[in-house]
Amino acid sequence: MATPQSMLVVSAHSADFVWRAGGAIALHSKNGYRCKVVCLSFGERGESAKLWRKGDMTIEKVKSARREEAQRAADILGTEVEFFDLSDYPLRVSDEALMKLVDVYRELQPAFVLSHSLKDPYNFDHPLAMHVAQEARIIAQAEGHLPGQTVVGAPPVYAFEPHQTEQCEWTPNTFLDITEVWDVKRRAIECMAGQEHLWEYYTRVALQRGVQAKRNIGITAKRNIEYAEGYQRITPSVVGDLS
Amino acid sequence: MATPQSMLVVSAHSADFVWRAGGAIALHSKNGYRCKVVCLSFGERGESAKLWRKGDMTIEKVKSARREEAQRAADILGTEVEFFDLSDYPLRVSDEALMKLVDVYRELQPAFVLSHSLKDPYNFDHPLAMHVAQEARIIAQAEGHLPGQTVVGAPPVYAFEPHQTEQCEWTPNTFLDITEVWDVKRRAIECMAGQEHLWEYYTRVALQRGVQAKRNIGITAKRNIEYAEGYQRITPSVVGDLS
Amino acid sequence: MATPQSMLVVSAHSADFVWRAGGAIALHSKNGYRCKVVCLSFGERGESAKLWRKGDMTIEKVKSARREEAQRAADILGTEVEFFDLSDYPLRVSDEALMKLVDVYRELQPAFVLSHSLKDPYNFDHPLAMHVAQEARIIAQAEGHLPGQTVVGAPPVYAFEPHQTEQCEWTPNTFLDITEVWDVKRRAIECMAGQEHLWEYYTRVALQRGVQAKRNIGITAKRNIEYAEGYQRITPSVVGDLS
Amino acid sequence: MATPQSMLVVSAHSADFVWRAGGAIALHSKNGYRCKVVCLSFGERGESAKLWRKGDMTIEKVKSARREEAQRAADILGTEVEFFDLSDYPLRVSDEALMKLVDVYRELQPAFVLSHSLKDPYNFDHPLAMHVAQEARIIAQAEGHLPGQTVVGAPPVYAFEPHQTEQCEWTPNTFLDITEVWDVKRRAIECMAGQEHLWEYYTRVALQRGVQAKRNIGITAKRNIEYAEGYQRITPSVVGDLS
Amino acid sequence: MATPQSMLVVSAHSADFVWRAGGAIALHSKNGYRCKVVCLSFGERGESAKLWRKGDMTIEKVKSARREEAQRAADILGTEVEFFDLSDYPLRVSDEALMKLVDVYRELQPAFVLSHSLKDPYNFDHPLAMHVAQEARIIAQAEGHLPGQTVVGAPPVYAFEPHQTEQCEWTPNTFLDITEVWDVKRRAIECMAGQEHLWEYYTRVALQRGVQAKRNIGITAKRNIEYAEGYQRITPSVVGDLS
Amino acid sequence: MATPQSMLVVSAHSADFVWRAGGAIALHSKNGYRCKVVCLSFGERGESAKLWRKGDMTIEKVKSARREEAQRAADILGTEVEFFDLSDYPLRVSDEALMKLVDVYRELQPAFVLSHSLKDPYNFDHPLAMHVAQEARIIAQAEGHLPGQTVVGAPPVYAFEPHQTEQCEWTPNTFLDITEVWDVKRRAIECMAGQEHLWEYYTRVALQRGVQAKRNIGITAKRNIEYAEGYQRITPSVVGDLS
Repeated sequence: MATPQSMLVVSAHSADFVWRAGGAIALHSKNGYRCKVVCLSFGERGESAKLWRKGDMTIEKVKSARREEAQRAADILGTEVEFFDLSDYPLRVSDEALMKLVDVYRELQPAFVLSHSLKDPYNFDHPLAMHVAQEARIIAQAEGHLPGQTVVGAPPVYAFEPHQTEQCEWTPNTFLDITEVWDVKRRAIECMAGQEHLWEYYTRVALQRGVQAKRNIGITAKRNIEYAEGYQRITPSVVGDLS
Repeated sequence: MATPQSMLVVSAHSADFVWRAGGAIALHSKNGYRCKVVCLSFGERGESAKLWRKGDMTIEKVKSARREEAQRAADILGTEVEFFDLSDYPLRVSDEALMKLVDVYRELQPAFVLSHSLKDPYNFDHPLAMHVAQEARIIAQAEGHLPGQTVVGAPPVYAFEPHQTEQCEWTPNTFLDITEVWDVKRRAIECMAGQEHLWEYYTRVALQRGVQAKRNIGITAKRNIEYAEGYQRITPSVVGDLS
Repeated sequence: MATPQSMLVVSAHSADFVWRAGGAIALHSKNGYRCKVVCLSFGERGESAKLWRKGDMTIEKVKSARREEAQRAADILGTEVEFFDLSDYPLRVSDEALMKLVDVYRELQPAFVLSHSLKDPYNFDHPLAMHVAQEARIIAQAEGHLPGQTVVGAPPVYAFEPHQTEQCEWTPNTFLDITEVWDVKRRAIECMAGQEHLWEYYTRVALQRGVQAKRNIGITAKRNIEYAEGYQRITPSVVGDLS
Repeated sequence: MATPQSMLVVSAHSADFVWRAGGAIALHSKNGYRCKVVCLSFGERGESAKLWRKGDMTIEKVKSARREEAQRAADILGTEVEFFDLSDYPLRVSDEALMKLVDVYRELQPAFVLSHSLKDPYNFDHPLAMHVAQEARIIAQAEGHLPGQTVVGAPPVYAFEPHQTEQCEWTPNTFLDITEVWDVKRRAIECMAGQEHLWEYYTRVALQRGVQAKRNIGITAKRNIEYAEGYQRITPSVVGDLS
Repeated sequence: MATPQSMLVVSAHSADFVWRAGGAIALHSKNGYRCKVVCLSFGERGESAKLWRKGDMTIEKVKSARREEAQRAADILGTEVEFFDLSDYPLRVSDEALMKLVDVYRELQPAFVLSHSLKDPYNFDHPLAMHVAQEARIIAQAEGHLPGQTVVGAPPVYAFEPHQTEQCEWTPNTFLDITEVWDVKRRAIECMAGQEHLWEYYTRVALQRGVQAKRNIGITAKRNIEYAEGYQRITPSVVGDLS
Repeated sequence: MATPQSMLVVSAHSADFVWRAGGAIALHSKNGYRCKVVCLSFGERGESAKLWRKGDMTIEKVKSARREEAQRAADILGTEVEFFDLSDYPLRVSDEALMKLVDVYRELQPAFVLSHSLKDPYNFDHPLAMHVAQEARIIAQAEGHLPGQTVVGAPPVYAFEPHQTEQCEWTPNTFLDITEVWDVKRRAIECMAGQEHLWEYYTRVALQRGVQAKRNIGITAKRNIEYAEGYQRITPSVVGDLS
């Protein structure tokens, strides 16, 4: 195909895509995909504790610092990023913002979509982002929405890993081997100066998922996997071979 | 790889593999896989109503008729078949029979395994077959079981479609396009003289799953799918690309 | 009782009631029930692909064509139909529209209510319609809502069959035998010129549910069932006999 | 029909049928049903604390006392009772005992079957009794089991109320109005001298279920319900009317 | 600690906190906790049937009567109560009201929070109240919300008992012994003149939960428990000892 | 109380108690509890890959090496350990072995019990061990089992952390702070020479659970938690205070 494939990430706050899908972005970007991240908010109220504690802060200063971090991480991972600048804690998504996301789907025609877990009792912005990602996808498929545009097919939807997986009823049914791009993801992670306490946490997540991925291909498999990301595929897959 | 890939089907009764996995067998067989079906029983007591109503029947006559039908279907689909000849209604699997199935795993080294749904309130033989299929796989992975033999890796396990899916809490997360081998599956189905009332039932199942598979790749997809089989993959997949 | 019993169907789009509850409507109508369908939208944006592809279309033209089809189907099935003309893809239900539905409950005093499944990852309008059907029922029960009106009792709520049942976590716990009105339902289905690809799909659904209903009364039962509709009853039943 | 209808209760211990299904038995017995209870064990080890504390007890004495209580309760309720005298805590059911239960099904041809909840973390005998009740039903349906006998149809299976419902994942979807036979059930309950602490407990259960049943028919309903029993119907119902 | 501990109850209607958490309030109040109840509405439309049937009623009169009852009950239990006076049936919570609840969290700094079950098919106001209780808690934790205020820690959230527990998928994982304050709770219950039919219902609930609590500490335990309340703890506990 | 409290761990294989409950054992042992571990098997067939690969091995040699490792770990943690020496892969537990475990309950009178997750698709020995732990507890509570002995109360049952938590449907609802005994657990872990690849894996598990435990007490809490173990409490707790 002449046009490269593309992928879409819908991120509630401006750092989520790095911790949770940074490996997928780096890997597909490296393999020629056009990647796009939509950050619904900057996480300026709820996920910027360290910045606020600096003192002399305003919402605008925090947003600006968060934008910069996210942009740098995006550049390292090799993805476009668009900031919708909606509020956080609580995130509220108007129908206007929803339609803007529909436009992204129509323009990008993603081969697959990544967003948050369907539930998260610790963070209501996260499942709302996933809900919106799904709803925009459905509208983008509708022939009667802006007739004349090319509708979207049925890109698979994946939920990336939340912070406390079991509390979120999130179960990975797909492991992505990110060993070859781990150093890229780690560099992107290190852009998140405001959440340094999470660097090692998500490094350990990647190592644990790597061990589990290895186990799920079996000890007899040749492939060595050191780092992985877990995903819960929401939509069924359609295949021509079961192995 | 010089050795062809292989696949294993664990079927509670001697006709289950035809209705529920006939398309997968025909397709992979056509594509060069070595296929093997283990029929734990002939379904002689619980799934041979038509034969019993003929009158002048014995268990041995029913088993013999069922074996013949299953063998013919297997030949059409292109698979080996082994009959364990355990009892049905109720199926009982001794540790000795379990170990015989472990031997099959070790010898076959299947790339994937197909068996029944994890639950079935209408038929307790079915979930038991799946349980045994999983347990044998686990034992076949153990280094301490018959040390010296090559252990089995981590072949994915799929649950094929039960009769009343929703009552069995079975959800297909994988659709297999069987359009190109549908005629083969239909011919195998027609070997099941004793259950003629199910021929059209499972033809309709294949058509419905075909429509659903098509919907899950999206109307924009080029691939035409007319017939499909649904599978519930039990074990996570490990991938290098999410599209 | 002098007043005939009545039933209510809450349909997200103008064709849903035909595919999913056409048999129930035709049967109860035939048996003397007053039937009423509320179509929240025409499905003009999301379920009218064929009409849009004709070219030279506008929202108003599509809505008009959809209304006409639905009215014809309703006439064949023997039901009143009221169009709320809310938007679709996404459906949005204001409190004003909700109260209009409450009025319908109060006026109709339905013996039971049919609507969509509680979940549907392919279509967010569907579960919203069910949610609204339940919420309106609760409000119609409140003594303090328009005091002086007769409140509604506790009509059972049923979820009718969605397109991909297992993905919607929908499980039929009630089968309705529609054999004697199948021809009526089929004629109503054939009014849906814009979705001809679904005619055979839902004919097969009725046949499959017929086989399953037969199985659930047992092969020894006298009653012959050829076509059925599946329903998931949401609210408990209260009975005087368990057989 | 000339032959009266019949019902079957499979009770793990010799008192369970009284607390949990006494109303259903009394009501159907009164309405002309032939009723039969199978007590798999006497509950001699695990549910006879008061008897054991009397001192000078043996297993045989406890069993004898329990049998007498159960027989008296059965007489009051109007049901046959058969004691299989298997062990309790833990209950173990051999294939021979299972086949004896199959014989009961074949002879009784029950219109419906009542047994325990599918899970019970406080009592493993209970779900085993349900499992066996279901398995015997399946075998009794098999044409190849003792060919020549009349097979069983598809009698609905209900789980009656366990002691701590929510811990057992038991949800009542059917309430049976037992107001008119409550005094009979209470008299049967009072036969259980060894478990007097439960008399008021299960009287309160009946009152609570009565209030809930009333709520589920609505305050506008004429029928007065004071006492009820809750049941979880496991198998789908097949109906000709949804009200 | 110098400052006494505090607890928060978020109640959809003005009587819910009495039936469902009255024992917890009385007990903690007695033990020195500062208690606060937020009533989102008076339940004036949906839970005041008896008042409406008196005739000559207006919304204002009903609200006034409900407020008086609730205030009296609160006084007896020993808790502050604040009425948000939002609408009921349906309850609607604006972001403004949500922020008012956030203020309560920040001011009160509760050690734990009680609200409704996560689901309730009979009453959509109840789960909404719980949703809002959780969302306000999350916002109160955010450093960027009104920076300078003391943020809230991670107070455990409990769902108190709904009317029909199993239909609400509510499972108690925590029993609170309220024996010593039962008389206080009963007196508070008796303030609810408008819902006298529930007095005995919730007395029986307390007795049943008492029996169950006793069972869960074991018959060998010294503590006598006569009355209890059941709670479903939503958030994990962090402990230094497992007994 | 004069007699110290005690705790029981039921471990399918001889190393499980170290990875999964080593912190709980070390902590409670340090705090004066009598601790006892029952190892149902040595894990000689399924969890001793490294030993088998050494060559020149027999089942007896492997068992002996595993016993020695486990005994050393137990000594470090401060617990008694008893080896039942049943088979593994598959584990099979006879009623005789079950009764031996009942004896342990009766003699030990544990304040709480730890065992495996209720499900584990990767390892059927694990859920069987939990099943047996629960069943033995139920029998130990029965007055009619070896009358004269002191029966067991209702010790809470916890499922400790399995290898792939989400695949096992295991959700931690209790975090145990093991920071002060982490070094002890680590030393015990290092006894497991045959599974060195798991040392770092379970160190990371403890760190992740530590971060999560910290999050669940809130950032405002004084207590510092670095290492934790997650547990799923199966049985409800009975408390006198909700904070």
